[in-house]
Amino acid sequence: MTAAPTATTWLDVPPGHPFGVHTLPYGSFRAAGLPGPRTGVAIGDLVLDLTAASAALLPGRAPLFAAGTLDGLLAAGAGAWAEVRAAVTDWLTVERFRPVIEPLLRPAVTTVPELPFTVADFTDFYASEHHAARMGRLLRPGGEPLTPNWRHMPLGYHGRAGSVVVSGTPVTRPSGQRRDGGGAVTFGPSLRLDFEAEVGFVVGTPAPPGRPVPLAGAARHLFGVCLVNDWSARDLQAWEYVPLGPFLGKAFATSVSPWVVPLAALAHARTAPPPRDPRPLPYLDDTAAEPWGLAIDLTVTLNGHTVARPPFAAMYWTAAQQVAHLTAGGAPLRTGDLLASGTVSGPGDGECGSLAELTGGGTRPLTLPDGTRRAFLHDGDEVTVTADAPGPAGTRVGLGEVRGRVTPAVPAV
Amino acid sequence: MTAAPTATTWLDVPPGHPFGVHTLPYGSFRAAGLPGPRTGVAIGDLVLDLTAASAALLPGRAPLFAAGTLDGLLAAGAGAWAEVRAAVTDWLTVERFRPVIEPLLRPAVTTVPELPFTVADFTDFYASEHHAARMGRLLRPGGEPLTPNWRHMPLGYHGRAGSVVVSGTPVTRPSGQRRDGGGAVTFGPSLRLDFEAEVGFVVGTPAPPGRPVPLAGAARHLFGVCLVNDWSARDLQAWEYVPLGPFLGKAFATSVSPWVVPLAALAHARTAPPPRDPRPLPYLDDTAAEPWGLAIDLTVTLNGHTVARPPFAAMYWTAAQQVAHLTAGGAPLRTGDLLASGTVSGPGDGECGSLAELTGGGTRPLTLPDGTRRAFLHDGDEVTVTADAPGPAGTRVGLGEVRGRVTPAVPAV
Repeated sequence: MTAAPTATTWLDVPPGHPFGVHTLPYGSFRAAGLPGPRTGVAIGDLVLDLTAASAALLPGRAPLFAAGTLDGLLAAGAGAWAEVRAAVTDWLTVERFRPVIEPLLRPAVTTVPELPFTVADFTDFYASEHHAARMGRLLRPGGEPLTPNWRHMPLGYHGRAGSVVVSGTPVTRPSGQRRDGGGAVTFGPSLRLDFEAEVGFVVGTPAPPGRPVPLAGAARHLFGVCLVNDWSARDLQAWEYVPLGPFLGKAFATSVSPWVVPLAALAHARTAPPPRDPRPLPYLDDTAAEPWGLAIDLTVTLNGHTVARPPFAAMYWTAAQQVAHLTAGGAPLRTGDLLASGTVSGPGDGECGSLAELTGGGTRPLTLPDGTRRAFLHDGDEVTVTADAPGPAGTRVGLGEVRGRVTPAVPAV
Repeated sequence: MTAAPTATTWLDVPPGHPFGVHTLPYGSFRAAGLPGPRTGVAIGDLVLDLTAASAALLPGRAPLFAAGTLDGLLAAGAGAWAEVRAAVTDWLTVERFRPVIEPLLRPAVTTVPELPFTVADFTDFYASEHHAARMGRLLRPGGEPLTPNWRHMPLGYHGRAGSVVVSGTPVTRPSGQRRDGGGAVTFGPSLRLDFEAEVGFVVGTPAPPGRPVPLAGAARHLFGVCLVNDWSARDLQAWEYVPLGPFLGKAFATSVSPWVVPLAALAHARTAPPPRDPRPLPYLDDTAAEPWGLAIDLTVTLNGHTVARPPFAAMYWTAAQQVAHLTAGGAPLRTGDLLASGTVSGPGDGECGSLAELTGGGTRPLTLPDGTRRAFLHDGDEVTVTADAPGPAGTRVGLGEVRGRVTPAVPAV
């Protein structure tokens, strides 16, 4: 017996809750009295212990969750993803499962999130035309905003997988070299610490090296999405990034949301990507393909005040194109690879996913409703990115949040 | 009973063998009749099954080798590194261990190497002034050869850890976008496939994020060195690298040697690095520190013909400075991080670690002794990088080899 897509749960989930029964994101958590990390599913303000629930009700798949992370599920492939999601939907909507499931639910506030999966390679793209053009104007004033290659392929770079942390982890202000206007090179805590609101795609099924994955094959490899804050030290980045690209200005911390929303939950969010000019080369040409634009609406808050509402639907390059580009070049995909979109920014002034854009490179500080002003982040500042997207029958599918607070720099050695 | 540093082995190792008793590199191998991968130590033309030997003679440390890789040893820290090396030295030099050890030795030619450790993050630096200047002249003709930041800090970028393969793995020619002289953008197999001969440093003991490791602390974190060939598609790289740095032009394959030589074996190779101008900022200033230059002499052969002899001693930035720079910026170190030096090139014409340099960007093809000419690599070409360094009492310590053969591109999808 499988629940219909519009089934309601026997649980008392508030209407309109972003983690309704159509969302069912996966994460990893710890809780008092439970040994080790557990794989969880968020439903409303509760967390289902999937490690325990699968052992009781889906023993054939229970080994996937024994380690308490998403790693096993990610690697198990699309058949397992569909089977587990259908089972969890049944458990939460069909009354007869209630006696087994209800004792395995606990309030989310009593759980501690863990990094949901082992990050293999972290690749950060640069897929927003609006972000790339604004950054180009700031970093290369007087030049063309976009480099000549930008409209031909999804540019990206590799980040530091070991610096990826789960939401809530404090972010230490990095130190590094910068050059001042007079040309003096100094070392010290970053003076221009910024956030970057992004959406990350998590790879499940691997692809071997040298085997191109066509656009139509991306769905076999991408499991789901999370929110990403790719913290950035603009002063360090500006001095180091030519010619090898971003390095330590973006290697100290990248925060991800604790809940990974499967792409199956975002079927109603699919939308056509913006028109491209020039038309992409054939391996990137998605004109006739399944649309991989996603109408995910992000909200960025700084110390509780909303500072931006970046629209993911405006992204020029899609995750399917990013997969096609990576693998056409011969790179393998591994389970746990994180493909982040790059900063999500729309055309509007209030749609920028970074302070650098919102403040014109720090020249026009934001005034927050509490009267404080920010060009870049101060110690103690807390940045939160939340998001949701259209779900079935007028519902919203939430992506949760990624949150982090800036702590002071560690003194130099 | 510990063997003296100049002890000779009871084994019949040819004098001058690069894997003499003073080298004792670690690797991972498979062999017929042995279950799973095994951790090994190379001695002469033999391989010692360290997984079995430790179980018999060093049971307290045997769990480090149960998985058959170096991961356990790397994570165990400097105390374990010294203890295991001393034990293996004893086993191979003290006659009474012979009855146990001899049956655990097998000819290296009967073993199949595995990737010796799980690569966490792969960071590739750009530490040769001679390489950076030659590449700058090729990529930015008419400009300054070195970017303004180059002499201030060890520039680097993150590579794709999932693309690191062990020596001997075939390297598929990558495909990708390039722009021709007329400005047309096309997709196809790389026409300018190159090698980069490098030395890689393998991180053992991790360092948490936000905790700077001073120059004097690098020895606590770096376990040993391997040889690296960072295969590079110059045409793809030239079109993609502005502004985010190398990406798919260097993400299809990076080969590493199967044997990791502990830094303990390279004590006699220590040498002062070249003078720096300007003097590095304090966190990078090694004037009064233990010298981290290493007199490792590389040899690059193409289809069996020597084409270059790059001197590692000429590198401007050291591995200790790279560790200090990474961690000063807040990045963590993880067990298995691979810090590669970037192409090793000296000042001389025959000391270049890449074809781009050896051929002036392909304008002056090499003529090999067999009469064939090479601007860049052809399908079927085999590149081998070998190296050795001074050992005790006039011996040489070998680093083994990293080898790979180019196979044709996979047809586009």
